[in-house]
Amino acid sequence: MNTLDALNQAFLVYPQTLKQKPRVAYAGTRGSYGEEASLSYFKKDCQLFPFKTFEDVFIALNKGNIDYGVLPIENSSTGSIAAVYDLLSQYQYFIVGEQEIHARHCLLAPQGTSLASIEEVYSHPQGFSQSEEFLRDYPQWKCIPYYNTAIAAAYVAEQNNPKMAAIASKQAGEIYNLEILAENINFSQTNVTRFVIISRNIELFQDPGQVSIAFHLPHRPGALYEIIGIFSVFSLNLCKIESRPLLKENWEYLFFIDFTGNISQNTLTNLIPIIQEKVEYFQFLGYYPPYSENNDTAL
Amino acid sequence: MNTLDALNQAFLVYPQTLKQKPRVAYAGTRGSYGEEASLSYFKKDCQLFPFKTFEDVFIALNKGNIDYGVLPIENSSTGSIAAVYDLLSQYQYFIVGEQEIHARHCLLAPQGTSLASIEEVYSHPQGFSQSEEFLRDYPQWKCIPYYNTAIAAAYVAEQNNPKMAAIASKQAGEIYNLEILAENINFSQTNVTRFVIISRNIELFQDPGQVSIAFHLPHRPGALYEIIGIFSVFSLNLCKIESRPLLKENWEYLFFIDFTGNISQNTLTNLIPIIQEKVEYFQFLGYYPPYSENNDTAL
Repeated sequence: MNTLDALNQAFLVYPQTLKQKPRVAYAGTRGSYGEEASLSYFKKDCQLFPFKTFEDVFIALNKGNIDYGVLPIENSSTGSIAAVYDLLSQYQYFIVGEQEIHARHCLLAPQGTSLASIEEVYSHPQGFSQSEEFLRDYPQWKCIPYYNTAIAAAYVAEQNNPKMAAIASKQAGEIYNLEILAENINFSQTNVTRFVIISRNIELFQDPGQVSIAFHLPHRPGALYEIIGIFSVFSLNLCKIESRPLLKENWEYLFFIDFTGNISQNTLTNLIPIIQEKVEYFQFLGYYPPYSENNDTAL
Repeated sequence: MNTLDALNQAFLVYPQTLKQKPRVAYAGTRGSYGEEASLSYFKKDCQLFPFKTFEDVFIALNKGNIDYGVLPIENSSTGSIAAVYDLLSQYQYFIVGEQEIHARHCLLAPQGTSLASIEEVYSHPQGFSQSEEFLRDYPQWKCIPYYNTAIAAAYVAEQNNPKMAAIASKQAGEIYNLEILAENINFSQTNVTRFVIISRNIELFQDPGQVSIAFHLPHRPGALYEIIGIFSVFSLNLCKIESRPLLKENWEYLFFIDFTGNISQNTLTNLIPIIQEKVEYFQFLGYYPPYSENNDTAL
């Protein structure tokens, strides 16, 4: 089924509601920011399945083992999470919602540890870069990168060695019974990570207001200008533009665009064919409610 | 001095040549791709200074300890290197050239090691993601992320343990006397990393043809469209657009644009004020010869 048919079919049952007790997958382990994003979006009413990598979440969706995946796509301090953009384009699944999480990092260590005994700190590389200013006061610490902040906390708890600490969330500290030696050590006090909720199918929840698409442009001057002009004609706001290299051709790019505005079924069915005509490849990624601190998601 | 004055002053001494025996800094250690990029660009006629982090290279430039820095800015398989974009905007230095390197990863281990004895593999996270398909055949191996591929190779050599291997360049294997157990294990056979050569000052070498700029847009619909329109009016080709979040404001972006075309001193001195008028913040990043496999750089 082509994009327009799939989208029009989804409009027939608009607005949809989330499944009851959905099976939700995230990358990480207990106490990770992925778990927090999943619980914030789906409330307590879901079954959580942690996976080791981002791609494992897509594979579980593909097998039909889960209903939704929850994946980080952008951090306000460190930028886009390229691997998730690539997987979205590879698997051709859909964004059905988004959730923001304030990542407040803590320095965690086995109970009774003092700052003076620490020699090694474990975290995700983003945990280190977001806590750079705090770490500058302890140049003697060896920072050892790990796959995930919560997995680093679990490892430090397991080792139970007063030379070792982790940078992870407060929740991770509580789950793994670690002592919180310092709180809110991220340098930007507005350190927010945006997660997307993905599904195998287009699902339109109440009040979608944001659209994500991806496309590959033909190689001629002005091609991007023409595309951006289309959004201007329809009075839509481009809120994000991201380019990712195509693997087959060096220095050719797949563009990812998010836009908002007064978007109706009519706008989309008019807009999409115009864009499709001007690009070499087009992918509709989703039409979903933008995150708002007060919204109660689709529940 | 403002951008236009600095640029016009640089045109007075165009074309410049590289300093004799320049002091060149890169991030990594002996055998790293940063060293290879430095040697490819500056040939043998330079003094090399390895530093641990990207920012250390900027700090050394700031102190006047070195003449040029060489930093990776983009990989054809895994995309932009966000930290380098952020440092370029923070330190306000200039791109004076670029160099591409084919990153051909090898699996390296202490002499006499067999594939069967390996339990742990050390590399930069990009080394793992670029060698993903090779690693899929060895799911029992534990992949441990490290700061740099060559530093991982040096560590494995130092440990001299047949359970340990590294993913790094062939050169790193030769330098640290490791056995090459598998060659060219990156999944994309065109795995290219683009490095930029940076300097404290604008330096214009023979035949510059590419311009890099950064800007922050006012918050109104159509702002990006207007900017891209300017390039269209001047018949310039946008070759790259990258957006990086501003730390102060969540979800506001600094845009980085590369463009090529028929660019003269006149084009630039006309173009820059038009762009400056339409943006809230403007930074000129450099006007430099685009990389070509046959060029001999500015030497």
